[in-house]
Amino acid sequence: MTAYPAAPLHPGIDGAPSGDGLLRIASIGPLALEAGGELPDVQLAFETWGRLDEDGSNAVLVQHALTGSSHVARGASEEEGWWDSLVGPGRTVDTDRYFVVSVNMVGGCYGSTGPASLAPDGQPWGSRFPFVTIRDSVRAEALLADRLGIDRWHSVLGGSMGGARALEWALMFPQRVARCAVIACTAASSAEQIAFAQAQLQALRLDPAYRGGDYYGGPHPDAGLGIARRIAHVTYRSEKELDARFGRAEQDGEQTLGAVLPADRGRYQVESYLDHQAEKLVDRFDANSYVILTEALMSHDAARGRGSLDGALGTATAEFFIAAVDSDRLYVPEQSRRLAAGLPGDVPVHLISSPVGHDAFLTQIHQLDGKLRAAFYPGAQPAVGFPPAAT
Amino acid sequence: MTAYPAAPLHPGIDGAPSGDGLLRIASIGPLALEAGGELPDVQLAFETWGRLDEDGSNAVLVQHALTGSSHVARGASEEEGWWDSLVGPGRTVDTDRYFVVSVNMVGGCYGSTGPASLAPDGQPWGSRFPFVTIRDSVRAEALLADRLGIDRWHSVLGGSMGGARALEWALMFPQRVARCAVIACTAASSAEQIAFAQAQLQALRLDPAYRGGDYYGGPHPDAGLGIARRIAHVTYRSEKELDARFGRAEQDGEQTLGAVLPADRGRYQVESYLDHQAEKLVDRFDANSYVILTEALMSHDAARGRGSLDGALGTATAEFFIAAVDSDRLYVPEQSRRLAAGLPGDVPVHLISSPVGHDAFLTQIHQLDGKLRAAFYPGAQPAVGFPPAAT
Repeated sequence: MTAYPAAPLHPGIDGAPSGDGLLRIASIGPLALEAGGELPDVQLAFETWGRLDEDGSNAVLVQHALTGSSHVARGASEEEGWWDSLVGPGRTVDTDRYFVVSVNMVGGCYGSTGPASLAPDGQPWGSRFPFVTIRDSVRAEALLADRLGIDRWHSVLGGSMGGARALEWALMFPQRVARCAVIACTAASSAEQIAFAQAQLQALRLDPAYRGGDYYGGPHPDAGLGIARRIAHVTYRSEKELDARFGRAEQDGEQTLGAVLPADRGRYQVESYLDHQAEKLVDRFDANSYVILTEALMSHDAARGRGSLDGALGTATAEFFIAAVDSDRLYVPEQSRRLAAGLPGDVPVHLISSPVGHDAFLTQIHQLDGKLRAAFYPGAQPAVGFPPAAT
Repeated sequence: MTAYPAAPLHPGIDGAPSGDGLLRIASIGPLALEAGGELPDVQLAFETWGRLDEDGSNAVLVQHALTGSSHVARGASEEEGWWDSLVGPGRTVDTDRYFVVSVNMVGGCYGSTGPASLAPDGQPWGSRFPFVTIRDSVRAEALLADRLGIDRWHSVLGGSMGGARALEWALMFPQRVARCAVIACTAASSAEQIAFAQAQLQALRLDPAYRGGDYYGGPHPDAGLGIARRIAHVTYRSEKELDARFGRAEQDGEQTLGAVLPADRGRYQVESYLDHQAEKLVDRFDANSYVILTEALMSHDAARGRGSLDGALGTATAEFFIAAVDSDRLYVPEQSRRLAAGLPGDVPVHLISSPVGHDAFLTQIHQLDGKLRAAFYPGAQPAVGFPPAAT
């Protein structure tokens, strides 16, 4: 992993269209953390699309998921965005009309200060990187919004862990969020989400290469991170989908009963598929960031320090848009209904219909186009075609 | 782990009631294996309850699950059995009327030949223990049945992986199985079951103490086995149950946001619960056996080498009893319906109703009492009370 050096706010921050979808870095200074630590000098890496209005009323914040990044949409970059079908010129979140911002989470590995960044002693943070909660991330994002001149977001949108940050924005800074979309996410991480996360982090930490998090000078814990990803990926999909796609088929050219020792046998297709998912993540993601962000997600709880969950949600003043995936077994629709029920007023829960499971919040987001337009973005034109989303 | 020495067939094999529920060991000789290996001198550890009729018509085989054992019921032993509520004097499977047999799987760690047993060179098998499939286990059990003088089982019953062996008995030896009960099991391990098994085995094998399976002289891979169990245990329960029991509660005296470094924080209750499940398994189970039996379960496929699944199931001649747990997300009821649909005749799928998930095949087996009595054990008295089942 690269350690990201401090960098000044990009001069093109006025939203020059030529910079759409290109990474910029801003210093927001020290950040005191909810669990007691402090980061002395935080950099946030972010991208923008479109131009901020004179009155600052057209800013939209789009929040990424656990291993996602700020690259929501293409813009001037050729690289596919993860919500290209939703965000872009002429899309529902129309970058010809809105100034869209997306920020890489503190603790991640896409340019914002994280475990691979250099601590004040000039060495990577590694095992010393502190516990950062969802609320810490949101406070950091609020400091960036100040720098960008955004007093109040037209809307904050997020899916999965991005939904958790969107919700916390609405609860921590009610004056600064006019509209809030929480997609395939819950008001608080559930026992099952915590349980699967525990197994993932334990597998990652068991990798001898992990060395408690201080591995930057040597081999990285690819095996451990890969296992964590395999577990997570299964929970992101559905039993039905895995069965329909793979069943018990053997990987081409491999025999599952082909060896006297089971360790030497060939693989099932579903194993090969998960191997591929693991390899892809290991190539693009830092293990320490996976730990830090997963811990942040486990800590997600809208009720913490606010009395009851209903008490917490009841204080929200934003207009809400809540959606779930009907086949999601990790962020089950019932949790979205619980969230909606706690919010003021009568908040419907929209459903993405897909056999895929949780990941449909990426691949099938276009199903919400019409409802999001009607709720938050009236006057937007229906999107024509959409590229496949990258996970 | 103890390496189990060869031992002669127990002299009390005629079914003396004084021996009910006590472990006996029989030598069945060499066993050629489906994936190409061979075990030269196989011992099977088993238990019996009741007495075999003169005509040998009252023998019932009860098959244990992945980490289960032959200790189905108490008998002369004080130790709780895992189906005490179903099997015993006056129970549905009435040991005053039936001769009940249960056999520990080859590859396991409860007395049958397994990876901790001594190979011919006097050293534990360890990494050299061969791939053993469900069918290999069944062939071994058939050799034991020969020794016990049982030509044909009155009935073969099993839950989860025990159901896989029950089904294979009916398909491999149709002449020897009059009735077959397959509970919370499928005709073939599914893509999702394989996927979660892969993650478990990879975590276990990642433990540096595992040493490829040759750890008997040193520390055992408790951490790796514990992670495997955590993953498995979550799949054995349900999201609803975990949420209702634990929610986001903190473990007593621990603070989940209590430390600057996430690695030092306190645990959620659900984490403590899974830690406890892991510790319990590590105390009673051998990691190599977990690998060997999980690989056997992944290999489960009634269709293998028999053309189609329907072709394979269509040859069965036993009377079948199929049941599933309505909230089971690992062995989903749909799979039981698929199995039933392939069997000759009109085979209903009975449902255990429970919010618990897969494990209800143990804890709620009494729900099937009436239907099992009606189908297989007419004249048995309804059971009065039942102890809680051990997992």
